[in-house]
Amino acid sequence: MTQAPPPASPLLGVDYFPEHWPRERWERDAQLMVEAGLTVVRIAEFTWSKIQPRPECWDWAWLDDAVELLADAGLQVILCTPSACPPPWMIEADPSISPVLQNGKPLGLGHRRHYSPHHQGYQEASRDMAERMAKRYGQHPAVIAFQIDNELCGNTEDYGPLAQAAFQDWLEQRHGDLETLDQRLGLIFWGHQFNSWSQIPVPCDHSFHPGLQLEYKRFCSEAWVRFCAVQADAMRPHIGERLLTTNCYLHRWGTHIDWSDLVSQGGLDRFSFDNYSSSDHENAFYNDLGRALSPGHWILEQQCGLPQGQNLWPDDPERLRRALLRSVERGAELLTFFRWRQGLFGQEQDHGAILDHHGRPGPTFRQVQEVAAEIAHGEVKQLPPARVGAVFSWEDSWALASSPEAMDHVAISIERVSQAAHLAEEPLNWVLRPEQLQGLELIVVAGKVIRDEAWEEALVAAAEAGACIVSLPLFGAKDRWNAYLPDYQSEIIRKAQGALLERRINLRGEHQLHSQEGMKLGLRAEAWELDADGEVLDRFAGGPLQDQPALFRHAVGRGSWVTLAGYPDPQAFARLLTQLCQ
Amino acid sequence: MTQAPPPASPLLGVDYFPEHWPRERWERDAQLMVEAGLTVVRIAEFTWSKIQPRPECWDWAWLDDAVELLADAGLQVILCTPSACPPPWMIEADPSISPVLQNGKPLGLGHRRHYSPHHQGYQEASRDMAERMAKRYGQHPAVIAFQIDNELCGNTEDYGPLAQAAFQDWLEQRHGDLETLDQRLGLIFWGHQFNSWSQIPVPCDHSFHPGLQLEYKRFCSEAWVRFCAVQADAMRPHIGERLLTTNCYLHRWGTHIDWSDLVSQGGLDRFSFDNYSSSDHENAFYNDLGRALSPGHWILEQQCGLPQGQNLWPDDPERLRRALLRSVERGAELLTFFRWRQGLFGQEQDHGAILDHHGRPGPTFRQVQEVAAEIAHGEVKQLPPARVGAVFSWEDSWALASSPEAMDHVAISIERVSQAAHLAEEPLNWVLRPEQLQGLELIVVAGKVIRDEAWEEALVAAAEAGACIVSLPLFGAKDRWNAYLPDYQSEIIRKAQGALLERRINLRGEHQLHSQEGMKLGLRAEAWELDADGEVLDRFAGGPLQDQPALFRHAVGRGSWVTLAGYPDPQAFARLLTQLCQ
Amino acid sequence: MTQAPPPASPLLGVDYFPEHWPRERWERDAQLMVEAGLTVVRIAEFTWSKIQPRPECWDWAWLDDAVELLADAGLQVILCTPSACPPPWMIEADPSISPVLQNGKPLGLGHRRHYSPHHQGYQEASRDMAERMAKRYGQHPAVIAFQIDNELCGNTEDYGPLAQAAFQDWLEQRHGDLETLDQRLGLIFWGHQFNSWSQIPVPCDHSFHPGLQLEYKRFCSEAWVRFCAVQADAMRPHIGERLLTTNCYLHRWGTHIDWSDLVSQGGLDRFSFDNYSSSDHENAFYNDLGRALSPGHWILEQQCGLPQGQNLWPDDPERLRRALLRSVERGAELLTFFRWRQGLFGQEQDHGAILDHHGRPGPTFRQVQEVAAEIAHGEVKQLPPARVGAVFSWEDSWALASSPEAMDHVAISIERVSQAAHLAEEPLNWVLRPEQLQGLELIVVAGKVIRDEAWEEALVAAAEAGACIVSLPLFGAKDRWNAYLPDYQSEIIRKAQGALLERRINLRGEHQLHSQEGMKLGLRAEAWELDADGEVLDRFAGGPLQDQPALFRHAVGRGSWVTLAGYPDPQAFARLLTQLCQ
Repeated sequence: MTQAPPPASPLLGVDYFPEHWPRERWERDAQLMVEAGLTVVRIAEFTWSKIQPRPECWDWAWLDDAVELLADAGLQVILCTPSACPPPWMIEADPSISPVLQNGKPLGLGHRRHYSPHHQGYQEASRDMAERMAKRYGQHPAVIAFQIDNELCGNTEDYGPLAQAAFQDWLEQRHGDLETLDQRLGLIFWGHQFNSWSQIPVPCDHSFHPGLQLEYKRFCSEAWVRFCAVQADAMRPHIGERLLTTNCYLHRWGTHIDWSDLVSQGGLDRFSFDNYSSSDHENAFYNDLGRALSPGHWILEQQCGLPQGQNLWPDDPERLRRALLRSVERGAELLTFFRWRQGLFGQEQDHGAILDHHGRPGPTFRQVQEVAAEIAHGEVKQLPPARVGAVFSWEDSWALASSPEAMDHVAISIERVSQAAHLAEEPLNWVLRPEQLQGLELIVVAGKVIRDEAWEEALVAAAEAGACIVSLPLFGAKDRWNAYLPDYQSEIIRKAQGALLERRINLRGEHQLHSQEGMKLGLRAEAWELDADGEVLDRFAGGPLQDQPALFRHAVGRGSWVTLAGYPDPQAFARLLTQLCQ
Repeated sequence: MTQAPPPASPLLGVDYFPEHWPRERWERDAQLMVEAGLTVVRIAEFTWSKIQPRPECWDWAWLDDAVELLADAGLQVILCTPSACPPPWMIEADPSISPVLQNGKPLGLGHRRHYSPHHQGYQEASRDMAERMAKRYGQHPAVIAFQIDNELCGNTEDYGPLAQAAFQDWLEQRHGDLETLDQRLGLIFWGHQFNSWSQIPVPCDHSFHPGLQLEYKRFCSEAWVRFCAVQADAMRPHIGERLLTTNCYLHRWGTHIDWSDLVSQGGLDRFSFDNYSSSDHENAFYNDLGRALSPGHWILEQQCGLPQGQNLWPDDPERLRRALLRSVERGAELLTFFRWRQGLFGQEQDHGAILDHHGRPGPTFRQVQEVAAEIAHGEVKQLPPARVGAVFSWEDSWALASSPEAMDHVAISIERVSQAAHLAEEPLNWVLRPEQLQGLELIVVAGKVIRDEAWEEALVAAAEAGACIVSLPLFGAKDRWNAYLPDYQSEIIRKAQGALLERRINLRGEHQLHSQEGMKLGLRAEAWELDADGEVLDRFAGGPLQDQPALFRHAVGRGSWVTLAGYPDPQAFARLLTQLCQ
Repeated sequence: MTQAPPPASPLLGVDYFPEHWPRERWERDAQLMVEAGLTVVRIAEFTWSKIQPRPECWDWAWLDDAVELLADAGLQVILCTPSACPPPWMIEADPSISPVLQNGKPLGLGHRRHYSPHHQGYQEASRDMAERMAKRYGQHPAVIAFQIDNELCGNTEDYGPLAQAAFQDWLEQRHGDLETLDQRLGLIFWGHQFNSWSQIPVPCDHSFHPGLQLEYKRFCSEAWVRFCAVQADAMRPHIGERLLTTNCYLHRWGTHIDWSDLVSQGGLDRFSFDNYSSSDHENAFYNDLGRALSPGHWILEQQCGLPQGQNLWPDDPERLRRALLRSVERGAELLTFFRWRQGLFGQEQDHGAILDHHGRPGPTFRQVQEVAAEIAHGEVKQLPPARVGAVFSWEDSWALASSPEAMDHVAISIERVSQAAHLAEEPLNWVLRPEQLQGLELIVVAGKVIRDEAWEEALVAAAEAGACIVSLPLFGAKDRWNAYLPDYQSEIIRKAQGALLERRINLRGEHQLHSQEGMKLGLRAEAWELDADGEVLDRFAGGPLQDQPALFRHAVGRGSWVTLAGYPDPQAFARLLTQLCQ
């Protein structure tokens, strides 16, 4: 990944669909974009059926025209490869391109993302389309970047026969023989010791074996990364210095693809995401994650009006400005608004935009204009370097999500940490690789359920060097096949925590325990036996763990390890972060 | 449609299933019906498998017998064509008769309405059955009418391959070529520019293109109308003066078929509906709508006991009487109760009836007897002619219903108007055609989303002639292909409103704004710029539209146009109607 | 069924999965079990894929080893036939073994219970497996019993083509000709007079004919009983005095199989169930039912830690002990805990157990140890013989459950009676056969909806002999084909009640009526006309039945018949039981 320094002030742009509007309107739109203070336009998503209306027929003229017109207005262009929407004739010719949903129905024509990433023919067609686009526009002076596809995966995986066969092959290559697979995953549970790879089902819901579930998530993530890389590799030779990216879909904490792999193996130059956050701390999370993935991350769809199915925008006129500044403060290098003008037709015809349906500049246009000026004048400062970090990995979130209580775990391990940092007004770094621990004073380890020696050594080393580690329940509880480990702690961690984990208790639903210092603790509670040199900071009050340690600290070298015996409520968590930072 | 004047006093009758009871009970039933004051009996629904138990075997004897026996008792008979329930042998011989539900499963044997209206063979079989019935009973002196099928459509459309092929043909005939279809609907959205009619999917839920959704509703409605007309045309030559009708299913505001088309093109003499309303204003709506569709409308199933899945009947002994009188006051010409006696077997065995399972007259029988006497004595007066009207069309309700927030719109545009008129104690006319505006003093335009020049001219003419028009948000917002129009008002309406619509704001879910005069306004809020001669009647209090007009009036000829910048709560709406009527 | 007297003190045991753990751990586990005070181990569920990993390959060595090791430790063994989980190779070879769910999808590999009981080939394979197991271990001195399959049916029925064909055959054998079927069930409703058995659908939800629904429940129950009997018959010749049982799945009041038939016709020696009750009175119900089915019933899975998806266990440390004692007091002869140690892998990896994942004895181990000692010392007394009985049958619960309000009826007829007896602290006998009425002073008849002459005579005879009968609504309301009877009472019952039932009123949802003495009455209300010698104990207060009898008594011989004109709330019901017992 190109480690370009972020520009002095981030670029602002907009998502535009010239193909939705009469040609005679385009000039006016370009002129208004410039007036709004925008400098970048993203175009051509979903236009395969316009570029190639029939197998033998290619029509680039309209796109040439649009690029020239925008360039003439002084705008820079990001072009999208249109693979998110295979054209109708292609699906008609080969319906097996469509993925099969969890309910067994194919997702056919009439939607978007109606293709399976496991379909080799479609992968090749997409590669060819991307290459043609790169050859045609890869040297255009106004084109600064290409977006590959749109919102890869979305929230739709393929569970059909194509996916099943690919999954079986993937498992065979990975595990070699069925005995190994059985031993690793524990397939004896409910008697599923396969004696042929072809017997292995696709786990399409939580009623399947958690080992298979986790492997399927890995398999799907790899497939999306490869689907992206195939296009990137085809385009790279033709685009010179132009950048490659894709707009990641980070809805509901975004755990479908390992975005870290996508950036490192997908052939991308920048990490980008679409920002439809519904809360400030969710917005912060995506940006903080973006910063960890790619210095100078991009936001390719920044909500700027009411999306369908969400709540009132105008109630809080500062929300747009705040969302933007929050991203810029966190290092965003480019933001493009979704979208320029409310669409007259199609599924998103009620979605908000910079311009209303009528196309006249109004309050949102002026809001954008003002913030653009503010940003252009360099008035927005980057946040100071974070003292606090939180460890995150996609594999861990998948392991947590393989049980019926999935979202509780994800919400608590990701959302609650974000929320606590937000309440404590502490800049937060998400730590994706051990080397990113460097320089942090306080490191939260929540939801890191798969035990990993390298991480454990790095965390202990950070503590020894002076950092404070705060670990929450389930740390290192499972092996990489999603099975619980019978030893609850590795020796190195047991020493660092200065305590032996005696027992894990499940706290279902709304059930909570309380501590003497007023923490509410949920989801899991733990019973610990402390070494002599452990320092109890708080104890359970009432309940089955009455008077047992709920929070304790142990000195490790020049630093310390703090253990929480439950997931605290956000306010208590924020207070704890503030105390430990002092 | 025959414009017969309503009789001095409406007829009362009952739905009877002689085939469910021993032959020896029939006389007693007929005698009790007469004692109850009933004069009409509807029979033969769902009896295809009894009339034609095998392809080559016809058995009319039992039905001849039943008709004679009822006639001998002095009762008049309405006969139903039995096409709502194709017999088992027919489905077994051709399972493609069954419709395919939204979930992809066929609705096969074991239910009712298990046929697709698009199946040509079944349409022909139904035509043949209807013709045979008309030939056999069309001259019988006791037979006064025929009911075609039962609750056409219900709430079940076909989404299977048969329906898809028929929809594709229908689109081709209507739009001529694919470019026209594309241009009209905006299929470029998400890249669905079809190059073959065979690619077009059936839109089976809200995730499909709203243009396709609206066209599919039109297509389905037309198919049901044609299915009805085919039987009507076959019967007409054989029935003399006898009337044709069908019992429309108006559950949940009843927007599946364009009942206006059904009456005008379905070959019917009377509009009839089934009345299972759960509130007084819903009951009023169906009757008011019935009056607009057919002078002297019929109610062919009038709930007279506890239906399955609804709430306690006996708690409110006046409810039955009130429901009946409300219908009679609104011009109903005939009411038949559902049903004579609680069924011992079958899916509706817990459904209420005039007689309980045991068959002895009880409280409901006596209630019916009393109301029948009251009606027969002409004690029920018709309501005075309405001063207030409300514009309604099925196409508009389908356009509103094509988004995820569908039912909110329908509820607000239909239900809230009914409720407000009910609270204001104002008789209400539903206005289905511009000529029905005549004579109204106050005309509400809510949910009329598709712009229509003829309607706009008629409304302005009505205002100029002295009426007050009250328009709510989204009036004329879309074209007939369900796309928003970039100009928010036509010139004629902009002049009539005396204001320019600046902006539409979506208010999702429970969100509401308030006016200074105490209105709560929801779903949409609008920003308006008034001409100099506009009169502001109320303003927004707080919120993003603080102090902007929430309600304003503009003089138009001898009348006026009042604009509401949101959907008011029913109480405020009722107050407004009362004020404007003064 | 062998009528062995219960042992002086019940046996305690545990469910163990040696195949989940390293061989070197087994000795330690066996030793800890003995230390805990356990004497029985249930093993080998779900191990078909381990016993027969390929069609031609049998591996009993591991199981021989496990049985020997446990025997050597002094433990007794219950062996399970593994038919709940057909091995993957078998499903791959014949996917038609898998049942088809209500949604139309097959339940294939990846789950458990993925077989249809109607598949003859699988039935034969299961028979063969059971016979081999019986031959191998049927003379082993440590083996005391065999469990057939696991949780037969569960809550999964087959609704696929295999089931449909079998259902059609079953109906033909039972009813002989289609006219008889039609007359009995009332198939004329919605015109379903079949003229070929092959037309009959499988009723997979409440939208089907209630007559077909009830027949389908009978058909399925018989199929499960036969599936069990086939294994039992194959095993019996080889096992000497060893006992046969199966662990019934009694979740949510457990109405899938007629357990009485299962015990009497399934070839079993003991009735056993799995106990995951969520309330004390539910626990009591299963045990009381178990006592009625088999003197000395067994509990083969006794929850002993937090199951997945349930609430906090440790909050109430007495709950485990209470659940156990409640079972022992009610005559349980053997209890085995589910499970020995928390599983590291597989779908239930978060399920509680005696040992935590780490395998070290902890609080639950010690709890078990203490209760085992208490029980072994004979400190737990059996309850005194019950004075109160309640009539129950599975057919009746199915008849009640065939309407959309199904669970309300089941809940009220089973749960409320259990709850009232629990609140009144009265031991309760469930009465499954008329001869079990003997010796009871007070007999509750709730939810006995199918009229049965033998039962009616037995109840009246019990009253004449001095008992008090308390009947609730719908007693004897339907015939055996699930149709309402037009006479509301037989003559014998009309005389016993001393009153004529005039009317049944449905009270939907949360609706309730009140009595003057403070009862709340729901679901159904009834209007009664009392004979001169009836004694009114309570009357309705307000509502449509104002001042009419809500509770009345009639002398019958040396006893009496008390009629409740609604389903009372549990507290009022408990007060009534207490009063009537005095």
